[in-house]
Amino acid sequence: MLPSWNDSTAKRSIIEFVARVNKKGGADFVPPMDRIAVFDNDGTLWAEQPFYFQGLFVFDRVRALAPQHPKWKNKQPFKAVLENDMKALAAAGQHGLVELVMATHADMTTEEFERTVKDWLATARHPKFNRPYTDLVYQPMLELLAYLRANGFKTFIVSGGGIEFVRTLSERLYGIPPEQVMGSSIVTKFEVREGRPVLVREPKLDFIDDHEGKPVGINKFIGRRPIAAFGNSDGDFQMLEWVTAGMGPRFGLIIHHDDAEREFAYDRASAAGKLDRGLDEAPKRGWTLVSMKKDWKRVFAFEKN
Amino acid sequence: MLPSWNDSTAKRSIIEFVARVNKKGGADFVPPMDRIAVFDNDGTLWAEQPFYFQGLFVFDRVRALAPQHPKWKNKQPFKAVLENDMKALAAAGQHGLVELVMATHADMTTEEFERTVKDWLATARHPKFNRPYTDLVYQPMLELLAYLRANGFKTFIVSGGGIEFVRTLSERLYGIPPEQVMGSSIVTKFEVREGRPVLVREPKLDFIDDHEGKPVGINKFIGRRPIAAFGNSDGDFQMLEWVTAGMGPRFGLIIHHDDAEREFAYDRASAAGKLDRGLDEAPKRGWTLVSMKKDWKRVFAFEKN
Repeated sequence: MLPSWNDSTAKRSIIEFVARVNKKGGADFVPPMDRIAVFDNDGTLWAEQPFYFQGLFVFDRVRALAPQHPKWKNKQPFKAVLENDMKALAAAGQHGLVELVMATHADMTTEEFERTVKDWLATARHPKFNRPYTDLVYQPMLELLAYLRANGFKTFIVSGGGIEFVRTLSERLYGIPPEQVMGSSIVTKFEVREGRPVLVREPKLDFIDDHEGKPVGINKFIGRRPIAAFGNSDGDFQMLEWVTAGMGPRFGLIIHHDDAEREFAYDRASAAGKLDRGLDEAPKRGWTLVSMKKDWKRVFAFEKN
Repeated sequence: MLPSWNDSTAKRSIIEFVARVNKKGGADFVPPMDRIAVFDNDGTLWAEQPFYFQGLFVFDRVRALAPQHPKWKNKQPFKAVLENDMKALAAAGQHGLVELVMATHADMTTEEFERTVKDWLATARHPKFNRPYTDLVYQPMLELLAYLRANGFKTFIVSGGGIEFVRTLSERLYGIPPEQVMGSSIVTKFEVREGRPVLVREPKLDFIDDHEGKPVGINKFIGRRPIAAFGNSDGDFQMLEWVTAGMGPRFGLIIHHDDAEREFAYDRASAAGKLDRGLDEAPKRGWTLVSMKKDWKRVFAFEKN
């Protein structure tokens, strides 16, 4: 089991936990109905460098839509995207990013948006690996998802990214159906257009599923506390904190991206997937810290062995 | 199958639909993954008269909390509840009801709220039937839920009521786990209290899962369009409209409460569960209209046969 994991402490801690909750009559037995496991997406199930893939999708959409918006050439943060000026883009901050999301993700029906995402995923290629983004899924994590499900767990994605973006790929990439995916969202409105009911995406934030938002989102969507949580950045800290503070057996795991050769090496100073507090506190909180370099036999399915 | 349903058109329309989506190689075959069925709760799965049960819970909570709030004696809408003045309560309208909900459902952790609901459900009794509210579940609908699940459907509740209220009973009453329940909600906030992470319910509306909110809620929680929808009031109209407007085989059903003897008779003029537009439009939209009186052999499991 878990063939892409090296036989180190990390792998053993997973197997030991699953055995414990699975042991009928044991002190730590958990009935299958309560075996809920939650996973962050960016940096935990697939890569997130040089930037969150949904961010790269946003930039590509801005470029594609620019001819219809001549004013963007002189207007930040659009100008920064069109000129590939990452410094100006960073200066625009969270606020600038939200503005870009609204300009590219709203004022269309949910069906139109889904089509746009699928078209992009089918054609765009990752700058480092020159492969579709959908190839950048971590093989050890796919094995972990399958292993947990084979042991009665129900697996959920709790993403800081857009819920409808992640849902277009969750079933195909991870075997996780859309109703087991939560994420950040914009407001959606019901309308009857020419006799046909549609849901229209509005340029207005609904929910940010990150940091403190993750336990809130889990409570909203799942309605009970999971027993295991998997993340990689400080955006996952409160999720792990809340999950592992529950009664009974609990499991928390953080992936540390320390493999510049096979993937990327980043942590405390990264724009995407910053890991600082989690790196300091994981040991004293009893969370498993995974070194991609040491604990994973391979990172991607396409690697030559 | 469906033993509590009379052998009438309504029952036959259900069985015919399920057979159609189940027939491998048939024109209307639907893969199990897309067999999503959504159910309203109040008036569809359990009773809602003399008023929504969660409303009756709110009134009981106001009475229980009144000694700690001496000013409520002279302040509407609290005064109306304490004096059982239904006319003044109706005059306070939706706004008054929201105020009562905030005073009784907020400023506590999610765990404290769950305990309050469970205590109430265990002790309160329905004024007409003198039984716990949890006995007021419709036997034909329990059979329908089981029948659909046996045919590969995943069943969800889409309630106008409070999501955390319905979740305390959904598994036990209907076999539906909390993560397959959506409803109206108030804002929840993550906090660390004395080193312990908790979720605190705030006196602020988050989402109203009724009328236009039902398709919006379904899209948010499930992420795709169900193929079957079951309701009883005009609060379910847009849900049925959106579900049955999708491509491929679709099924919509409305329960008409026309049985004053075994349950209650109400429709166009009712304060709870008003059914007006749905009654007019069901036939031309191809929705099955269930007469409780004619189509159900029995309503509750406790009835003598």
